[in-house]
Amino acid sequence: MKPSHRHRVVVIGAGFGGLATVRAMRDTAVDVVLIDANNFHTFSPLLYQVATAGLAADDIAYAVRGVFRRQRNVEVRMARVTAIDIDAHEVRTNVGAPISYDTLVIAAGAVTHTFGVRGADEHALMMKTLDDAVALRDHVLRRFEAAAADPALIAEGALNVVVCGGGPTGVELAGALMELFDRVLAKDFPRLDVHASRVVLVEAADRLLGAFKPASGERARRTLAKRRVEIVTGVGVSEIDATSVTLNNGTRIPAHTVIWAAGVRANPLAEIAGLPTGRGGRIVIDDALATPTHPEVFAIGDIAANPQNPLPQVALPAIQQGKHVAAQIGHRLHDEPLTAFHFHDLGSMATIGRLDAIAEFPGGLRLAGPFGWIAWLGLHLIRLMGFRNRANVFVSWAWNYLTYDRGSRLLAESE
Amino acid sequence: MKPSHRHRVVVIGAGFGGLATVRAMRDTAVDVVLIDANNFHTFSPLLYQVATAGLAADDIAYAVRGVFRRQRNVEVRMARVTAIDIDAHEVRTNVGAPISYDTLVIAAGAVTHTFGVRGADEHALMMKTLDDAVALRDHVLRRFEAAAADPALIAEGALNVVVCGGGPTGVELAGALMELFDRVLAKDFPRLDVHASRVVLVEAADRLLGAFKPASGERARRTLAKRRVEIVTGVGVSEIDATSVTLNNGTRIPAHTVIWAAGVRANPLAEIAGLPTGRGGRIVIDDALATPTHPEVFAIGDIAANPQNPLPQVALPAIQQGKHVAAQIGHRLHDEPLTAFHFHDLGSMATIGRLDAIAEFPGGLRLAGPFGWIAWLGLHLIRLMGFRNRANVFVSWAWNYLTYDRGSRLLAESE
Repeated sequence: MKPSHRHRVVVIGAGFGGLATVRAMRDTAVDVVLIDANNFHTFSPLLYQVATAGLAADDIAYAVRGVFRRQRNVEVRMARVTAIDIDAHEVRTNVGAPISYDTLVIAAGAVTHTFGVRGADEHALMMKTLDDAVALRDHVLRRFEAAAADPALIAEGALNVVVCGGGPTGVELAGALMELFDRVLAKDFPRLDVHASRVVLVEAADRLLGAFKPASGERARRTLAKRRVEIVTGVGVSEIDATSVTLNNGTRIPAHTVIWAAGVRANPLAEIAGLPTGRGGRIVIDDALATPTHPEVFAIGDIAANPQNPLPQVALPAIQQGKHVAAQIGHRLHDEPLTAFHFHDLGSMATIGRLDAIAEFPGGLRLAGPFGWIAWLGLHLIRLMGFRNRANVFVSWAWNYLTYDRGSRLLAESE
Repeated sequence: MKPSHRHRVVVIGAGFGGLATVRAMRDTAVDVVLIDANNFHTFSPLLYQVATAGLAADDIAYAVRGVFRRQRNVEVRMARVTAIDIDAHEVRTNVGAPISYDTLVIAAGAVTHTFGVRGADEHALMMKTLDDAVALRDHVLRRFEAAAADPALIAEGALNVVVCGGGPTGVELAGALMELFDRVLAKDFPRLDVHASRVVLVEAADRLLGAFKPASGERARRTLAKRRVEIVTGVGVSEIDATSVTLNNGTRIPAHTVIWAAGVRANPLAEIAGLPTGRGGRIVIDDALATPTHPEVFAIGDIAANPQNPLPQVALPAIQQGKHVAAQIGHRLHDEPLTAFHFHDLGSMATIGRLDAIAEFPGGLRLAGPFGWIAWLGLHLIRLMGFRNRANVFVSWAWNYLTYDRGSRLLAESE
C-alpha cells in the first residue's frame, strides 16, 4: 500500500458498527480501509430465519463493496487480521502487505462462548455467523432425511432439538424451529411422525428474556409452551454429546441437534491487539469510545465496553457508536476536543413466531402479539440493507406467511 | 420398505425428466419412489446466472418434497444410488434398505466429460451442478479479491477466464462473465484495472452454437466480440494447468480461471446398471423409451438415447419423455400396448447478455437481439417452478437490468 498524504483510518469489521463508522466518514477528508474476513455484511438479527429455512442466506447478506461503491474514500480489503502492532500503528492480515493507520477503529464483534461446558465446542451448533445458520439448517434437515430412510431413529431423538440459552436468539430460534417442524416439515414428510419431535429450550436463569421486563419473559414462555416448545428454566447444561444433552439436575434429553445460544465473548482480536480488556474479554474504552492508553485507537460494538456504562450487545449501540467515532475523527482532524458518547435507547424486540413478537420501547411502552410482530417486521425490513434484499425478504416472508411454506431448504448431496 | 400391493415405480433422478414422470403419474394407481442425491431440483438453464452472481443459488433450486406435497402416491428419498440389480428388480442406495420396483425409470442425467484433456479434471471448473456454479462464482470473486490485495497478479492472468466450449453454456457464460466484469466488478474494485481482464471463449469446431443455424452462431460471435469477449474457433484445448490453458496450435493463454463447458457424458449410473449403452455412455432405449432387454426398465433424458433418433440434451425432450413414460406405465397397468414417443420440437434458445438472445423456432422463425431476449426471459420465468422462486428471480433480474448491480456475490471467509 502506497503512503498517503491523507489521514488514514483503518476499520476492522464490516458488522453494524464498522459499516456505520465508514458510512459516516463519507464526507470526511480521510482515506478509509475497511477490513473484513468476509466480503459481505450479515444482517445478524435475521440469522435465525436462515437457520430455520425461512430465508435464503443471500437474503440477509450484502456485498460490502456494493455498499461503498459510491463512497470514493473507502478501500475494502477481504482479509483476516492476524496481528495489530499498536506501537507501529500497523495492522497485519493473511494477504498482502501490512496496513498502516493514523486512526484505528476495532469493530470485530463477538464470538460464541461455551463457558467450558463439556462437549459444547465439539457437538453443539452455533448461531453467530451466516455459515453457522446454514450449517444448522442443513443439520436439522439431514436429521429428517435420515429418519425418512430409517424411522427407528425418531425414538433415539433424531428429530429432537435442545436450544441452550433463553435470550432473544434462543427464544426466536425455538419458536421458529417448532413452526418449521409442525407447519412445514410435517407436510414434507407425511410418513414421519414429525409431531413426536421435541424442541426443548434450556435457560440457566429463572426466566426467559432476562434483558426484557418480567412480563415479556412470561409472555414468551406462554406463547412458546402453547406452540409445543418445552421450556426448562433455572437449570444449567452440564454436558453435550452427539445424541443428548445432560442438565445440571441430572436429566438427560436425547437430541441429535443441540444449539448453543447461551453466550458470547469478545472476538479474540481483542487479546491479539494487546489492549487492556475487561469482562467477557471486551476492550476497555472511555466515554469518548477511545482506548485510554492509545487515544488513536477506538473500539466499538460487541468487542468493546466502557466499564462504567456497559451497553446491550445488539446492533443499535454499535451503529450509534460508529457514527460517534466518525464524528470524533472529524473533531481530531480539526483539533477540536472529543465528545462523550451517549446511547439513545430505542427499545428491544424479539419475535416468538408467526404473528407474535415482543417490542419494548423506552418510557414503558410495550407491544406484544400481532402488534409487536408488525412492529418487528417493519423495522427489520427498513433496516435490511439494499433494495434487492428488502424485496426478496418481503417476497419470502409474504410467501411463508400465506402458505406456511419455506423455500430455502436445500441440501447438498447426501453424505 | 414394506412390500406394497400396488405396482411400484421407482424413479431415479429429480431433474426435468424425473419430475415430469412423477408428476404425470399423479392419478395413476401406482406407488412412486423418487430418489435423488439432492433434496432439490435444479433449474439448470439458469446455472450460468448463479455462476456470474446474477441469481442466488436458492433462486434456481426447489425442494423436491415441496413439489410433491399434495401428490399422495409419491415417496421422496434423498439418497445416492449405489447399485441397480436388474434381475432382482432392486435399487440400492447409500441409506436404508434396498428398494424393489415393478417398473424402473432411470432419469439420472449427464455429467461433465473432459475427453482426457490433460489437467482438465484437476484444474478446470465445471458447470453442471448447483455446487459447480457456486464454486465458479466463488473462484472468480476470490481472484478479484486476491488482485485487490496484490495488483501484480493481474499481469499473471489472475483476472483472465478461458471458457472451453462454444455451445449455449459456453456462450451464455462468456457473455455474462464479461458483463459481470465490466459492469459490476469494475465498480466494486475501482482501484483495479478490471478492463485489463480477458474472457476467451475456445471452441474446437469452426463456429459457435453448432446446434443452431449458422446465422445464429455468427450473431453470437459478433455480439460477444463487441462486448470484449475474445473468440477462438477451430482450435482445441490440449492442456490446462492452474494458471493457463494451452491450445492445440501451441498458444498459451494465461488464466487463473478455466471453465470446462465442452462436453458431457451419461451419468455413470448407466454403466452401474449393466444395461447396453451407446454413444456417450447413454443407455440404449427403443421407440417406447424402454430398454430392449428389460421392458420394465425405462430410461429418459440425457442418460438415454434411441440410436435411431438421438435428441438434443436439453430440458424439453426429457420433460416430454417423462410424460410419455408415465402414460406407458398406465398402458401396462391396463394391458394396453405401449406407444412410440415422438419429440415435439418447440425451438432452441441461448442468451448472449443484456438485451440479447437467440431463439429459433420450428418452421424457421428466428428471433435475435432484444426480441429474442424477451422471449427467453419470459419462457424461463414461466418454467421456473414455484411462485416464490419466480418472484425472487423477477426481482433479481429487474434489479440487475436497472442497475447493473449483482446481489449474490458473497464469499465465505478468506482462505
